[in-house]
Amino acid sequence: MKNVNMHPFPVSPDWCGLDEATLRERLAGYFTESFERYESLFTCLVSDTAFYEKPITLRHPLIFYFGHTATFFVNKLLLAKLIDTRINPRFEAMFAVGVDEMNWDDLNDAHYDWPAVSEVRAYRDQVRAMVLRVIREAPWHGPLGWANPWWAILMGIEHELIHLETSSVLIRQHTLHHVMPQPGWMPAMLSDKSMADVPENTLVDVAGGEVRIGKGHPHQNACTDEDKEARRYGWDNEYGTHRAAIPGFKASRMLVSNAEYQAFVSAGGYTNDRFWSEEGLGWRSFAKAVCPTFWIERHGVWWLRLMCEEVPMPWDWPVEVNAHEAEAFCRWKAAESGLPVRLPTEDEWYRLYDVAQMDVETPAQRRLAGGCSSVSVTQFAHGDFYDVVGNVWQWTCTPIYPFAGFEAHPLYDDFSIPTFDERHNLMKGGSWISCGNEALRASRYAFRRHFFQHAGFRYVVGDAPLVPQVSHYEDDALLAQYAEFHFGTEYFEVPNFPARVAQIALEVSEGRPRHRALDIGCAVGRSSFALAQGGFESVAGVDFSARFINLADTLMRDGLVRYALTDEGELQSYREVSLDALGYTECADRVSFWQGDACNLKTTLTGFDLVLAANLIDRLYDPKKFLEEIGQRLVSGGVLVLTSPYTWLTEHTPRERWLGGFKQDGERYTTFDALHELLAKDFVPLGVPQDVPFVIRETARKFQHTVAQLTCWERR
Amino acid sequence: MKNVNMHPFPVSPDWCGLDEATLRERLAGYFTESFERYESLFTCLVSDTAFYEKPITLRHPLIFYFGHTATFFVNKLLLAKLIDTRINPRFEAMFAVGVDEMNWDDLNDAHYDWPAVSEVRAYRDQVRAMVLRVIREAPWHGPLGWANPWWAILMGIEHELIHLETSSVLIRQHTLHHVMPQPGWMPAMLSDKSMADVPENTLVDVAGGEVRIGKGHPHQNACTDEDKEARRYGWDNEYGTHRAAIPGFKASRMLVSNAEYQAFVSAGGYTNDRFWSEEGLGWRSFAKAVCPTFWIERHGVWWLRLMCEEVPMPWDWPVEVNAHEAEAFCRWKAAESGLPVRLPTEDEWYRLYDVAQMDVETPAQRRLAGGCSSVSVTQFAHGDFYDVVGNVWQWTCTPIYPFAGFEAHPLYDDFSIPTFDERHNLMKGGSWISCGNEALRASRYAFRRHFFQHAGFRYVVGDAPLVPQVSHYEDDALLAQYAEFHFGTEYFEVPNFPARVAQIALEVSEGRPRHRALDIGCAVGRSSFALAQGGFESVAGVDFSARFINLADTLMRDGLVRYALTDEGELQSYREVSLDALGYTECADRVSFWQGDACNLKTTLTGFDLVLAANLIDRLYDPKKFLEEIGQRLVSGGVLVLTSPYTWLTEHTPRERWLGGFKQDGERYTTFDALHELLAKDFVPLGVPQDVPFVIRETARKFQHTVAQLTCWERR
Repeated sequence: MKNVNMHPFPVSPDWCGLDEATLRERLAGYFTESFERYESLFTCLVSDTAFYEKPITLRHPLIFYFGHTATFFVNKLLLAKLIDTRINPRFEAMFAVGVDEMNWDDLNDAHYDWPAVSEVRAYRDQVRAMVLRVIREAPWHGPLGWANPWWAILMGIEHELIHLETSSVLIRQHTLHHVMPQPGWMPAMLSDKSMADVPENTLVDVAGGEVRIGKGHPHQNACTDEDKEARRYGWDNEYGTHRAAIPGFKASRMLVSNAEYQAFVSAGGYTNDRFWSEEGLGWRSFAKAVCPTFWIERHGVWWLRLMCEEVPMPWDWPVEVNAHEAEAFCRWKAAESGLPVRLPTEDEWYRLYDVAQMDVETPAQRRLAGGCSSVSVTQFAHGDFYDVVGNVWQWTCTPIYPFAGFEAHPLYDDFSIPTFDERHNLMKGGSWISCGNEALRASRYAFRRHFFQHAGFRYVVGDAPLVPQVSHYEDDALLAQYAEFHFGTEYFEVPNFPARVAQIALEVSEGRPRHRALDIGCAVGRSSFALAQGGFESVAGVDFSARFINLADTLMRDGLVRYALTDEGELQSYREVSLDALGYTECADRVSFWQGDACNLKTTLTGFDLVLAANLIDRLYDPKKFLEEIGQRLVSGGVLVLTSPYTWLTEHTPRERWLGGFKQDGERYTTFDALHELLAKDFVPLGVPQDVPFVIRETARKFQHTVAQLTCWERR
Repeated sequence: MKNVNMHPFPVSPDWCGLDEATLRERLAGYFTESFERYESLFTCLVSDTAFYEKPITLRHPLIFYFGHTATFFVNKLLLAKLIDTRINPRFEAMFAVGVDEMNWDDLNDAHYDWPAVSEVRAYRDQVRAMVLRVIREAPWHGPLGWANPWWAILMGIEHELIHLETSSVLIRQHTLHHVMPQPGWMPAMLSDKSMADVPENTLVDVAGGEVRIGKGHPHQNACTDEDKEARRYGWDNEYGTHRAAIPGFKASRMLVSNAEYQAFVSAGGYTNDRFWSEEGLGWRSFAKAVCPTFWIERHGVWWLRLMCEEVPMPWDWPVEVNAHEAEAFCRWKAAESGLPVRLPTEDEWYRLYDVAQMDVETPAQRRLAGGCSSVSVTQFAHGDFYDVVGNVWQWTCTPIYPFAGFEAHPLYDDFSIPTFDERHNLMKGGSWISCGNEALRASRYAFRRHFFQHAGFRYVVGDAPLVPQVSHYEDDALLAQYAEFHFGTEYFEVPNFPARVAQIALEVSEGRPRHRALDIGCAVGRSSFALAQGGFESVAGVDFSARFINLADTLMRDGLVRYALTDEGELQSYREVSLDALGYTECADRVSFWQGDACNLKTTLTGFDLVLAANLIDRLYDPKKFLEEIGQRLVSGGVLVLTSPYTWLTEHTPRERWLGGFKQDGERYTTFDALHELLAKDFVPLGVPQDVPFVIRETARKFQHTVAQLTCWERR
């Protein structure tokens, strides 16, 4: 076998500064090249049967992927209103969904009656003609940014390039008799190095430094951005900002080769459980793995499965493994060496990229430019390293997470968000087949840790503790509602309630000491922050709900929280709030959150100048006890601020413990009456009661709209 | 025994046109007279023990009633803010509640530790002094009407006069050794008529005519009212208006005497079940009654229990029975005579009053003026009748109900409303002890049908069918919420939703035929009325909920509905809506309401020019079926108006039948998308979608605030 001299596929283009005719022409070219290259990949299948048998059980057969990338164009161009009719509704329902393991039900064969390959090919021709017609004829208004309807065309192209790579992996996983080497898809030249000839890997120092990632706000005009990569297509997860100071570390000069990995295999790495994480062990047992998935042992001789052929093991090529195997190798290596060996973080990969002074044009085994396979781990030197990009993807230990300022793209809001689950790890650098956006520094792809791509790894040695990133979107409906209630949008022009209540409390405490405040029943904490910002030296937020406290604490600790709001039925929209945007960054260190029971407060919670109990009393199991004891927590002259809509419900408060809202001795006895009676011993009323409205969003169209009564009381 | 010449107690005074000093003086006099007369009643008790033993098991002992009327003054004067502190909180908790059988738990003796009679007497002295001080010193602003704080003083006096009568009955029910005749409480002279000497009762014709009752709006200035009685104190149930055209009937000339009733007893009336209603039979078995409760047979001789003594049966006095016994007598009499003998309605009693040309000064055995007992049924002639008022109360067959325009008085909102339950029958005319308000034409007292007062009856013969009156307050929380949503107050300045939606539908149907409209999912029917009023010749309101349809139908049939809204906890406020006030009286006969299933409509519901389906589709079990079939119900060119907040919930619609609100083929698929797809076959969209907000009140402070989307569609 020998290298076929292939036309390298373009990286995702910079569309800025082009006149309209040139833009239409280049876009047509980029589309055609990716659309055709994708179709040519399927020439590796030896027969129509090969389209219908699944390479792996957790994925559709390849016929799906053949139709899918075309349907994707139709769906996104419809959403973007660049077209208004479907081409083939039946195909487009069938080929719409199926890329990740989000919903295994979709893989039920009984639900599919796949069309003939020729039909799909004809369908692809129709789609191709449609897309080209759009590129030729649709009205054009630049720039070609995130909010431009034409972004949908780029999205379709880049989506197809992702599938170019993932389908090449599926073909590599297909039974050998279903595939056939093709002139355009030949592997790179094999080296004849024996295992012993492979140069030993070494650790290289990487100086500490700052890493900056993120393309900033997605709606800015990318053509004015100094970051050249921001001028090219980006997926939603690339936007926002991330800055990190990276301590110095050591990184392996080369990717781990098949030879280096073999030492782990032969040392019993696949049978010694202590090298494996719990999740990794689960995968290893399920898969009955004893060596890398593309390794084949035949009569004591090792072979490697490539896309369409098995070849004698190229020991100097990078090993291809999933994240569990890569992590197990590192643990073994750490045990062997006594060093803190591990996978790099995403940030560390960027630090490597920066110190090696890489750019989009640096030669590397990528973009199908040097054969359709890996090459030797020493073929492409990048600074002190090899293969900072290209050859195979490099697993990191970082689960993908959104940068601050992340927004889901409205045309594809489930591209990234479902992967923000701590279960999808980032891979960096791209492989020999990575084209378009995949070949950019900015790109961020993540897969489940048991997943196979053309992916291997480099290891690092670093002492610094790893900082977990926030990837979670709170989608507990109640928590999301409260996050929105406290930090989100105002509805019906009703001012933010917890902020307004804190403001009133601050006005009442004007001229009094402002040392310590207690926000009892703080929920997700907005009033606590506002009281600290307004001047209290220390604010304790306490809530009975650990879930609420956890969200408040996350916001305080990480500076942001994200949540998913219900719009309609199962449709959601995604929100992010940050201390920065709220203006609470400065005061956050004066706030602390505690889980606690208002009817049985810790003794340390005392000596307060202000106690705010907003919408609390009608949710307590013993509100009388709370009111009778709260005086002890306040200094003399301290202020108690209560708000409540007096919504008594037996699910929260046993009927016999309601404060009011019933007839007592024959007369109407309101909660307001009861407050005066219960608080008279310790408090004097301050001012007159106020009505303070609040709105809690349940869906895009349904809200709770409530009017709390606010009363203030001075401790005798 | 002989008549003691007693000072007759005043009727409830007319307070209009008095200067302030005179008013204070007369009020002090009226108060003192009633307060003292009430205390003097308790001199009939022979010992303190008599205060603590219960005359009947379902009532408190008399010590309660001794304290109760004083406590009532304290409570109502506090509510009216005429005073601001209690006199004795412990007594006032103990003496507050207990007059009716609303809550038998209150009668648990273990809950009470009654104070000494002397303590209660001292407490009454304190209250008396307090009330007199208020009458002397409280600021005065006339007139002395319903909304005047001083109304609370009248309420206290009239309340005490009611208890003067009911306590006299309890004393009459007490064991004889607990009571002792007193000079001020002697019965009237006994006649010596034998049973045979009692004149036979006869039927007298009463001409038909109109009856007008009701004191009108409670907030009007009563002193400008032509109805003299409106210028005196009235309980809430006397206000509002009631007009009835009474067909001619016959009425017995006299009240039924003990002699006349004895014929029923000796004819086996208490053993023949067919004379008794089911409820009456239940009472009779429970009570093991064989004759009227105050009758005593001793060695074959009949005696009658009076308040403090037993006397040889005065056969010519009116019999005293409960409503069940009175009704059983009528059924027996009907069977004997072959005539439709029954108890009179309340309206018929008013007709008698009017034809007999009675007024407040007409001499009668009432107001304690002629001894503390009944007198002969022939002693007081009133026109062609005897005892149209006075002697004993006269049971009617009418359960008490509120007149149109009824409002509960805010100081005593449970005076009447708990009795609007079809279980409390009106008694009219008053007895020998009826004073104050009880002696007025306008007064309306009702008791449970098994209850004993100084009450008997007159019978009538009438063919006209009885019209049941509406007494019901809808207190099903959901129905009350919907009644308020459709017909009640607007909140947050959001216009009435069903009226506005109907208005939009009318605008859309402008210039099209307006023969028939269907309001599908009409709930309690506001839009149906509004469509008829707006010009539709016939409107069918259909809802799946029989409870909703029943409320809509009640409003259409009776012209009004009443409902109880939750304010806070168990506290409620009471509302009334009427077709008159809504302006729908004229159009109501063009509306019909039907229970029906929107997903399976009756075939007769077709040929509509307009179909309105407001907030329906997301509550259906099969909304697709509804939308696919609704076109068949419309004429060509007809209009379909849909509104919905698209709140999909599996409790209403199985997940697989939601129209939208999920990802379909990977893309967001909204209900709005689905409507266009499902309706395309039969309909063309009309105009653009509109957002129409609505508010549903849950408590005085808590609301659902929702924004429905309204779309219009023209039938092809």
